[in-house]
Amino acid sequence: MSFILLFQNHALMKCSSFLIICLLFTASTTFAQQNIGTKKEAPVSPEINSGNTVTLRLNMPNARQVLVKGDWMKQNATAPMTRNAEGLWFYTSGVLPSDMYTYTFIVDGQSMIDPLNVYAVRDVSSLFSIFIIDGGNRSDYEVKEVSHGTVTERWYYSPSLNMERRMTIYTPPGYESSGKDFPVLYLLHGMGGDETAWATLGRLPEIMDNLIAQKKAEPMIVIMPNGNVAQQAAPGASSDGFPQVAFYLPHTMDGVFETSFKDILHFVENNYRVKKDKANRAIAGLSMGGFHALFISANYPNTFDYVGLFSPAVNPLPNVHSSIYDNEIKKLTTQKNNGLKLYWIGIGKEDFLYKDVAAFREKLDSLHFSYRYHESPRWHMWSNWRAYMLEFVPQLFK
Amino acid sequence: MSFILLFQNHALMKCSSFLIICLLFTASTTFAQQNIGTKKEAPVSPEINSGNTVTLRLNMPNARQVLVKGDWMKQNATAPMTRNAEGLWFYTSGVLPSDMYTYTFIVDGQSMIDPLNVYAVRDVSSLFSIFIIDGGNRSDYEVKEVSHGTVTERWYYSPSLNMERRMTIYTPPGYESSGKDFPVLYLLHGMGGDETAWATLGRLPEIMDNLIAQKKAEPMIVIMPNGNVAQQAAPGASSDGFPQVAFYLPHTMDGVFETSFKDILHFVENNYRVKKDKANRAIAGLSMGGFHALFISANYPNTFDYVGLFSPAVNPLPNVHSSIYDNEIKKLTTQKNNGLKLYWIGIGKEDFLYKDVAAFREKLDSLHFSYRYHESPRWHMWSNWRAYMLEFVPQLFK
Repeated sequence: MSFILLFQNHALMKCSSFLIICLLFTASTTFAQQNIGTKKEAPVSPEINSGNTVTLRLNMPNARQVLVKGDWMKQNATAPMTRNAEGLWFYTSGVLPSDMYTYTFIVDGQSMIDPLNVYAVRDVSSLFSIFIIDGGNRSDYEVKEVSHGTVTERWYYSPSLNMERRMTIYTPPGYESSGKDFPVLYLLHGMGGDETAWATLGRLPEIMDNLIAQKKAEPMIVIMPNGNVAQQAAPGASSDGFPQVAFYLPHTMDGVFETSFKDILHFVENNYRVKKDKANRAIAGLSMGGFHALFISANYPNTFDYVGLFSPAVNPLPNVHSSIYDNEIKKLTTQKNNGLKLYWIGIGKEDFLYKDVAAFREKLDSLHFSYRYHESPRWHMWSNWRAYMLEFVPQLFK
Repeated sequence: MSFILLFQNHALMKCSSFLIICLLFTASTTFAQQNIGTKKEAPVSPEINSGNTVTLRLNMPNARQVLVKGDWMKQNATAPMTRNAEGLWFYTSGVLPSDMYTYTFIVDGQSMIDPLNVYAVRDVSSLFSIFIIDGGNRSDYEVKEVSHGTVTERWYYSPSLNMERRMTIYTPPGYESSGKDFPVLYLLHGMGGDETAWATLGRLPEIMDNLIAQKKAEPMIVIMPNGNVAQQAAPGASSDGFPQVAFYLPHTMDGVFETSFKDILHFVENNYRVKKDKANRAIAGLSMGGFHALFISANYPNTFDYVGLFSPAVNPLPNVHSSIYDNEIKKLTTQKNNGLKLYWIGIGKEDFLYKDVAAFREKLDSLHFSYRYHESPRWHMWSNWRAYMLEFVPQLFK
């Protein structure tokens, strides 16, 4: 459905000063609610073509070289754009499977988002333009006409860190009105990410709404904390102002987040209508967040019946000494003996952590620690992590 | 405070494969949590200089003309950037008063955000880069070390429109734990805006957190609905996918939103701990939202003790027939006779709606309808609307 139509012409014939001046300003540039969108003329970018190719366009006639870097391409690959006689650069992809995609342009060496695409997300320290190819097995990333959960940015106090910190919370449709208690998934981001990553790049609200509507997933609360203990909140959302965004922060993999995780658990269990037993707690994370999920679940005995490690880091960093990482074999053995319902590991065949994860799986095998293993194509990327959610979430709390 | 430091060198000497490969990839481009930020080298943009000027930089050596369009300039003005010997474009502003600013570059005619600035917001159909000049009388727009309220995106059902719709909700610090009831401000966006506008461009959460912390404002709930009845939610957040964003939508000023506003009121009063009387209800809006606030407050008798019209449209569009706009004089007279505590009007001296508002004030004067009037410099812009909030909100619920 598209309600986006211009006023019909007859309505414009007799104009109030409000409307007249709106139109005058539209013809130039800036105005009401401060900035009128000047109506998008051709060129359009991105344009999803029938047959699920995408055409990208860029109107920078004086550039000498323009590349597209898109996550549908091979790892770290770029593709050249071609300049036509009018000076317009364009590129058309091959057929793309259903997914959400991110891309940037590289104009004479300068990376930038697509100036014609208003939809962008931040991943670590850069913005990326996005589009979705629908109609396929990744259509659960789209907003659909289903009941929608509630997404909240909420601050809480962490006694362990003596800090006010922010988390993102998804509560399922009906949470507010049902009076019931719900199970909880704690969902952790990777290095350079923050409490906003799963809700934006991860399409968490869309995935949960759609899986719940299809009755593929139990209604559950999803808690997305900030796993960087040096940060109160995402860049731009704390009293640090608008800093340059760093990939490496101190205290990301030194046991401090894992130790302080109890503050998050206590806050959630004291402030939300949740089921407070092992059978109704899950923890999962990607990359560094997988590392956190591994060691939190191993160090909080008998707390989680469901663990998800998505492309996880599995080895502590060198020169890091924390009791969190000591006696791993003993802790995993205890975790196994206590029993749990699902220990799920997913990784891409081309992921740089593939070998580390293979060695970790051997460790689990040697302990007769049972787990489910999901090997996907490709590498360390959001396309995989969203897809892992589609696999993992339907197995929870059944 | 800045925790954004690189790992110390000695930590890098003995590396896990995780860390080594992180670093290798940093040197190229893409990686974990999919995209490492390549560490920002010079050039930096924006750079806030001592003395509160700002320097902007752009690395596009082949461009022929680069302009900056910033909302610290005169209306619709641009300023040229200068290319240095290395092909880097730069611009330095004059001294800027404390405020949040938005800007774009125009590169050979193509408008774009600053590729070096990761902080951007959407205003209607375009993205804008942002920065804040702090330390002055607009420092309430910054996130500070104060207690923070909660920001929620929540869906509700509108019986009048037979639609699921989304609103943004600010609840003050302590709302969840206090058990108290709170007053409510309904805060409406302008044409082309949506339920996200006040929370992003309007810096609503920061303004409320700071005014409440300073005890300048009563703790209150702020409800920011979507005033475009043709939309369920902001562009990108509904089942419309990622549409081209339109300034003109159907049914924005034809009485339908005002009529359906009761659904919002009922939802809030049935789902939040609010005080449900006239003395504890306020309604305000900017531009089209001011128009909505004017006619909602006039048509819902004895409902609001506080009304704020920020650069409001005051005249119905031609060829629009709705009982909402009939008998305006009679309704305003009833509103006056019922009594209210504050009818606040703010507008910029250069606003294109200035004359309409002056005529509306004459109408109010002729009715002996008392109001407070705030005339500010400049025009129809977010800088004024944020500043009006700093004036308006401390007067509420006292």
